[in-house]
Amino acid sequence: MKVYLSGEIHTDWRSEVEAACEGLDVTFTAPVTDHGASDDCGAAILGAEPDKFWHDHKGAKLNSIRTRNAIEAADVVVVRFGEKYRQWNAAFDAGYAAALGKSLIVMHGPDHQHALKEVDAAALAVTETPRQVADILRYVLTGRLPG
Amino acid sequence: MKVYLSGEIHTDWRSEVEAACEGLDVTFTAPVTDHGASDDCGAAILGAEPDKFWHDHKGAKLNSIRTRNAIEAADVVVVRFGEKYRQWNAAFDAGYAAALGKSLIVMHGPDHQHALKEVDAAALAVTETPRQVADILRYVLTGRLPG
Amino acid sequence: MKVYLSGEIHTDWRSEVEAACEGLDVTFTAPVTDHGASDDCGAAILGAEPDKFWHDHKGAKLNSIRTRNAIEAADVVVVRFGEKYRQWNAAFDAGYAAALGKSLIVMHGPDHQHALKEVDAAALAVTETPRQVADILRYVLTGRLPG
Amino acid sequence: MKVYLSGEIHTDWRSEVEAACEGLDVTFTAPVTDHGASDDCGAAILGAEPDKFWHDHKGAKLNSIRTRNAIEAADVVVVRFGEKYRQWNAAFDAGYAAALGKSLIVMHGPDHQHALKEVDAAALAVTETPRQVADILRYVLTGRLPG
Amino acid sequence: MKVYLSGEIHTDWRSEVEAACEGLDVTFTAPVTDHGASDDCGAAILGAEPDKFWHDHKGAKLNSIRTRNAIEAADVVVVRFGEKYRQWNAAFDAGYAAALGKSLIVMHGPDHQHALKEVDAAALAVTETPRQVADILRYVLTGRLPG
Amino acid sequence: MKVYLSGEIHTDWRSEVEAACEGLDVTFTAPVTDHGASDDCGAAILGAEPDKFWHDHKGAKLNSIRTRNAIEAADVVVVRFGEKYRQWNAAFDAGYAAALGKSLIVMHGPDHQHALKEVDAAALAVTETPRQVADILRYVLTGRLPG
Amino acid sequence: MKVYLSGEIHTDWRSEVEAACEGLDVTFTAPVTDHGASDDCGAAILGAEPDKFWHDHKGAKLNSIRTRNAIEAADVVVVRFGEKYRQWNAAFDAGYAAALGKSLIVMHGPDHQHALKEVDAAALAVTETPRQVADILRYVLTGRLPG
Amino acid sequence: MKVYLSGEIHTDWRSEVEAACEGLDVTFTAPVTDHGASDDCGAAILGAEPDKFWHDHKGAKLNSIRTRNAIEAADVVVVRFGEKYRQWNAAFDAGYAAALGKSLIVMHGPDHQHALKEVDAAALAVTETPRQVADILRYVLTGRLPG
Repeated sequence: MKVYLSGEIHTDWRSEVEAACEGLDVTFTAPVTDHGASDDCGAAILGAEPDKFWHDHKGAKLNSIRTRNAIEAADVVVVRFGEKYRQWNAAFDAGYAAALGKSLIVMHGPDHQHALKEVDAAALAVTETPRQVADILRYVLTGRLPG
Repeated sequence: MKVYLSGEIHTDWRSEVEAACEGLDVTFTAPVTDHGASDDCGAAILGAEPDKFWHDHKGAKLNSIRTRNAIEAADVVVVRFGEKYRQWNAAFDAGYAAALGKSLIVMHGPDHQHALKEVDAAALAVTETPRQVADILRYVLTGRLPG
Repeated sequence: MKVYLSGEIHTDWRSEVEAACEGLDVTFTAPVTDHGASDDCGAAILGAEPDKFWHDHKGAKLNSIRTRNAIEAADVVVVRFGEKYRQWNAAFDAGYAAALGKSLIVMHGPDHQHALKEVDAAALAVTETPRQVADILRYVLTGRLPG
Repeated sequence: MKVYLSGEIHTDWRSEVEAACEGLDVTFTAPVTDHGASDDCGAAILGAEPDKFWHDHKGAKLNSIRTRNAIEAADVVVVRFGEKYRQWNAAFDAGYAAALGKSLIVMHGPDHQHALKEVDAAALAVTETPRQVADILRYVLTGRLPG
Repeated sequence: MKVYLSGEIHTDWRSEVEAACEGLDVTFTAPVTDHGASDDCGAAILGAEPDKFWHDHKGAKLNSIRTRNAIEAADVVVVRFGEKYRQWNAAFDAGYAAALGKSLIVMHGPDHQHALKEVDAAALAVTETPRQVADILRYVLTGRLPG
Repeated sequence: MKVYLSGEIHTDWRSEVEAACEGLDVTFTAPVTDHGASDDCGAAILGAEPDKFWHDHKGAKLNSIRTRNAIEAADVVVVRFGEKYRQWNAAFDAGYAAALGKSLIVMHGPDHQHALKEVDAAALAVTETPRQVADILRYVLTGRLPG
Repeated sequence: MKVYLSGEIHTDWRSEVEAACEGLDVTFTAPVTDHGASDDCGAAILGAEPDKFWHDHKGAKLNSIRTRNAIEAADVVVVRFGEKYRQWNAAFDAGYAAALGKSLIVMHGPDHQHALKEVDAAALAVTETPRQVADILRYVLTGRLPG
Repeated sequence: MKVYLSGEIHTDWRSEVEAACEGLDVTFTAPVTDHGASDDCGAAILGAEPDKFWHDHKGAKLNSIRTRNAIEAADVVVVRFGEKYRQWNAAFDAGYAAALGKSLIVMHGPDHQHALKEVDAAALAVTETPRQVADILRYVLTGRLPG
C-alpha cells in the first residue's frame, strides 16, 4: 500500500508514523521536508529571480512534480495540519487527493476542528496522533486492532 | 462560460466581479454565503448533534453537495483568499479544481504571496482585485482588453 | 439540478419529495415504478422465457438502460430503503452512484441503521423523510433553511 | 490476476475458493472478516461514540479504505450473498464494481434469484458454489475446463 | 435520449424504428447511409488516390468523424446486422460503444446468433425487429409496455 | 510491452508472431484458442442450457472476463482476420481497443481490404503476415529494422 | 457540432471556413486572433513584468484559459499551419486535442508535409484549403458531397 | 520514476541527461533516434509507397506506437527543442503530455523563448541544459540540490 504523508514539515510526525508501522507492507512518500531547499529549489536550479513571486513560483512548480506524482500514485493520503503557519498547501493537497478519489486521512488537534470541517468531511478518518494513523494502516492491511 | 466563485464570504467581492462582468455570457455559481446557514444547515435539516464535530460534519457534507457539483460543472474556478480566518476550505477547493483540470484563478493580497505559493503555482492567473478577475473573463470571452 | 430517486417503489415517497420541491429548479428521474411492468418488460418485448432466471435477466437488463443512464446523468442520487423486500437493487444503485462520484443522499428508518452503515458512510446525507430530502435540495439550490 | 472476494463473512467460502484455486496465478483480497473488529474498528482506534450511528459511521469509513482500494485494484470482483442478514454492503460493492467496469461474478443460492436480478444482470457469471468460482478463474487464466 | 443507429444501410430499418418511436423524446443519429457517398467521400473532398487502400482509408477516416462523435454523444447505441456483407464496421461500432459503457442494443436474425454471441453478450438487449427496438425505447422512456 | 493477440483461432499465426519476437521484452496474451472449450465453457461450468442462445450467452460472458481484462491491460492490440467465419468478435475487439485508445495493429489478406476499411482506419498499422507484426514490435521496442 | 479553429492568425482562413459553412449547424470557436492583445494580455490585466519571459508567461496562461476550454468543449479541432512563424502552439494544440480523443483535421501546404508527418498521422483528415474543411464539415453533418 | 525524453534527435542531450542522473531511480524512454530508420520504418516493414505522403504516414504511425505508449507510461515528460528543423512533433508531444496531466519539463535556448511561450506556460520547469534537467530529477527524487 502506498501512503503519501502530506502537510506539516516542522515536527517528526512522519517518522513516528513510519516507526509505528514497522513490519507492515507500506511504502511511504512525502514532500521534500527541508524547508530551505523546498523554498529555494527553483532559483537554485533554474536561476535567481529578482521578484519574490517568481522565485517562489519556480520553486513551487518543481515541488509539484514530486507532490502530484506521489499523490496520484498513492492509495492513501494522510494530511497533517500542525500548529504553525497557514498550511494552505496541506489543504490544497487534501482537495487534490479528494478530487482524485484517494482515501483521505486527516490529522490535526481539536482546536482546528471547526476551521477544518470541510476537509474533515472529505476524509475517511480524522485523527489526532501518528499512533492513530499507524493503527488505521495496520487495521486496513491486517485486520488487527490495537491493544 | 460557467465560473465558480470560491472562498471568502465576508466581503462583497462576488458582487463586484459580477457587476464588472455585466453583459458577458457568464453564469456565476458560489457556495452558500450566509455564514450562519452554512454552519448550521446539517443540524437544522437532519437534527441536532450534541458533539460539535458531528454538528459541523453534517453541515459540511450538505455544503459539499453544492460546492462539488458547482466546481465539477465550472469552466473556470476563482478562489479568493481574504484577510480573515484560516480559509482552508478555499485552499481545498483550489486543490479539488486543480486535480479536475479546471482553469484556476486565484485572488489574494500580496501579504499572502509566500504562503499561497503552491496554490498560485497551480493557477492560470494570480489576481488582487475583482476588477482583474472581470478583465480576465472579458478577455477570455471577447478578446477585448481593458482601457 | 438533476436528481435520481432510486429504491423503494411501493410507497409514494417520490411524489412527496417532488411536491415538497415545487418551485425549485430540479429535474427528477426515477426507475419504472410499476412493479409488474418492471418485472415482465423483458419477456413482454423480447419474448417469453421458460426459465425464470432468464425471464428476470432480460427484464433487469432493459431496466438498467433506464437506470444507468439516469444515474450517470444525475447530479444527486437519492436512495430510499423501505420496510419491505431485500432491496438489493437500491444498495446496488448506491454503490454504482458512489463509484461515479455522485452526491449520494440515503433515506431509511432507524431500524435499518446498522445494516446500512456502509451505504450511509458513502452518503453526504442520511435522512428519514421526504421532507428532509426536499429541505436539502432547497438548501443546496437556494441557501434557504426550513422554518 | 487480482480477485476481490466481497460479501458474506460468516461461512468459509473464501477459503474454499482459495483452496480450489491452488496453483493458479491469482492474488485474493477480501474485507476484514472478523465481524467484531469490523464493527468496532472506528471506536477502537479513533475513540468511542455515545451515538450508535457515529460509532458505526467511523467504523464503516475505516473499512471502506480497505474495500475501495481492493475493489479498484481488482481485475475480478466476486460477490457472495449468503443466507443471513440484509447484506446491503455486498450489493453496494457489486454496484461499485459494476460502475468501475470490473468483471463481476455473483454467488448466491436459487432462493435469492428474483431479489438479486438487477445484480445478476450486471454480472459476467452467476454461480452457486465456490467450486464454480474457482472453475471460472481456472478457465479464464488457463483455458482448462473442469473434469 | 440520444440513440445512435449503427450498422446495415441497405434496408429501411432506421426509418421503421423512427416511425415507431413517434412522439417519444428521442434524437436519432446515424452514419451516412448513401453507400456511394460513404465509400468515396475521402477522394471527392481530399483528392483521388490511385491505390484503393488509400482511397478507402481517406473515406473511412472522414466517416469516423461522424460516427465516433455520434457514438460518444449517444445514450443508447443500436447495432443492426443485416443479411448481406461482412459488416465488420457494425461489430467495430458495437465494441467501441461497449468500451465506452454505452447501453447497447443489438438487432439481427436468428441465423446469426452463434456468430454474434460475443456481441450479444455485451448488449443489454438482443432484438430481431425495429418494432422491438422501438418498444424498448418507449418502455425505457415512459415505462409503458406494448399492447 | 503487453501485446494482446485477438481474432482468428484456427491457424498458428500467434505462435509465428511469438517465435519471430523471441528475445524481445514482450508479454503476449490471447483469448482461449480451443474452439470447443471457448464455445462450451459456460455450460460446462455453470450448467447446461436447453436454449442455444443462453448456452452461448453464458460462454461468451465467461470468455469476456479473459478478453476484456487482457485488452485493458495491453499496450498493443493485434487483431487478425482470417479467411473463414464471420469473425465479428475480432471486429468487436478492434472497436473495443480503439475506444480505449490502445495502439491497434490489424492483420488480414488483401481480399478483405474494402470490407475492413473502417477497422483499418482506426489502426496504426495494417499488416498481412505474422512476420510484419513481429517486425513492428521489434522496431517499436528496439528501433531496429528488418534485414 | 462544435469546431475549434486553431493555429495561424495572420490570414483570413477562419472566416473563409465559416462563410463556406453557412447554413450548417456548427458553432465555431477560436483563440484570440488579435496578435498584440494575445501577446500583451497578461501584462495589461495583471501588471507589467520587466522580464520578457514572465511577460509572455502571464499572457500565455490567460490565453490558455480560452484555448483549453474551447478544445475540451469541441467535437472537431481544425489546426492550420501557415507559411510564417514557428507555430509551435498550433502543434501543441494538435497534440492536446489528440490526447483528448478529439477528431482532428489539419490544414497546411504541401511544403510542410514531411515536417508535419507526426501531426498528420494523428489526424482524421489532412487538407490544404478552407473549402476542404467546410466540405468535410458539411459531409459529416449532412452526408452531402461537394459538386 | 519514468521519464520520457522527447524532441531533438541530432545532439547527444539524452545521454547527457542520463549520465548526469547516474545513481538515481529513473527509467528513461525515448523515441527512435535514428533519423533514417524513423523516417523509413513504415515502408521498410509494411511495403513501399510511391506517394511521399503515405510513405511518411505509415512511418509516423509506427513511431506513434512507441511514443504514445511511452508518454502515457511516463511520470515526467521532457521536451527538448533544438536549433534546427521545425520540430512540430516535439510541440505535439508537449501538448499530448499536457492534456494527459503529465509533469512537463521543457528545454530550449533563449532565442526560442517567445515562440515557445504557450508550451512553456504548460510546463512545470523551463530549462536550458541537460544538467538542469538532471538537477530537477535529482531534487524531485531525493530532495538534494546541486552544489
